[in-house]
Amino acid sequence: MVDTNFKMSFKVRAAKKEDCKDISRMIMELAVYEKMPDQVNISHKELERDGFSPNPFYECLIAEVSDENKTKDGYTIVGYALYFYTYSTWKGRSVFMEDLYVMPDFRGKGIGKGLMAKVAQIGVEKQCVRLQFSVLEWNKPSLDFYVAKGAEDLTAKEGWHFFRFDGQALHQLAKEAPED
Amino acid sequence: MVDTNFKMSFKVRAAKKEDCKDISRMIMELAVYEKMPDQVNISHKELERDGFSPNPFYECLIAEVSDENKTKDGYTIVGYALYFYTYSTWKGRSVFMEDLYVMPDFRGKGIGKGLMAKVAQIGVEKQCVRLQFSVLEWNKPSLDFYVAKGAEDLTAKEGWHFFRFDGQALHQLAKEAPED
Repeated sequence: MVDTNFKMSFKVRAAKKEDCKDISRMIMELAVYEKMPDQVNISHKELERDGFSPNPFYECLIAEVSDENKTKDGYTIVGYALYFYTYSTWKGRSVFMEDLYVMPDFRGKGIGKGLMAKVAQIGVEKQCVRLQFSVLEWNKPSLDFYVAKGAEDLTAKEGWHFFRFDGQALHQLAKEAPED
Repeated sequence: MVDTNFKMSFKVRAAKKEDCKDISRMIMELAVYEKMPDQVNISHKELERDGFSPNPFYECLIAEVSDENKTKDGYTIVGYALYFYTYSTWKGRSVFMEDLYVMPDFRGKGIGKGLMAKVAQIGVEKQCVRLQFSVLEWNKPSLDFYVAKGAEDLTAKEGWHFFRFDGQALHQLAKEAPED
C-alpha cells in the first residue's frame, strides 16, 4: 500500500530574483483556480523590479522539492507565499499575505501550512501582531483550511468590506487632489 | 442666511513626527465612531517609531485649518489619512488607505475628499494602479461617500472576505514554521 499523503520533504526559502519566472507561472495558475485568469496583468519583469530593488513592494517565500519529486514539466518550485507589511492604527505592525499557493499535485503534504507558518514567524520577528489575508467566499477548501488553523473571518464577524478605486475612477480622484 | 456648508479653507500636508499626538487623538475618535474604542492599543510613541524612521511602516497626511477655525479645544489639525503601499500579483503596485477621518464639526466641507484625493495622487505618482481600503458594512454614510466617488465594493461584487490570525493563533502558527 502506498501512502499518498506522506509528508514530502520540501524546503521553504526566501525567493531570489531568479525565481520570478516560477512565481509568475504560479501566479497565473492561482488566478485560473480563482476563475479570474484574464485579470493577471503582470510579468516576471515587474515582479523582479518591484520585489528586488531597494524598498521593495513585497517579499516572497517559495517551497522547493527535491529533483526526484519534480513535476512532470520539470519544476521543483511548487508553491509560494507573497506578503508585505501593513499597519493597523489600533494595533501597529501587521503582515499581509497576498497570495498563498501550492500546485495541486503537492497539496495535503504540509507545504501550504509550512509557507504560511514561515510568514507568521517572519512577521512575529518583525513585531507584527497580525497576519491578514483575503479569501473568496466560494473557496470553501481554503476557508476551511484557514479557520482550522485559527484564523478569524473579519468580514463575517465584524462586517468589514473591501473597497477599491482603480482605472478611470482612481485617475479622476487623483486629479481632484488639493494643491500643496 | 449663513451657508454652513461652505468650503472651509484647509491645507493637506504630509504629517511630521510632531503631529503624532494629534494623529493619536484622532485615531481614538475614529475608533469611538466605529464603536470599538477598546481596540486601540497604540500611542503616539509607537506612531513616531513606526512612521518616522528608515523604512517606515506607513505614511500619513493631515488636514489643517487656520487658527480662526480651530476647534473649541484649540485643535487646528482636524483630519488625517493614513496609508501604505501594498502589492497585487495581478496588477502590481497598490496603495492601501488604512484610515480616513475628519472631525465631526468639519465634515461636509471637502476635507475628507481632499485627503483621499491626495492619497490617490501620491499613489498614481508611485505607479500604483489601485487605491484600496476597508469599510464597516453598517457605516452607511461612509459607504455612500466612497461609492459616490467611484469606489467598488469588492466584498459584495466578488466575494472577498478579510481574514486574520492574531494573538495566540498567530504565535502558535509562527512556532510551526519549518526550519531553514
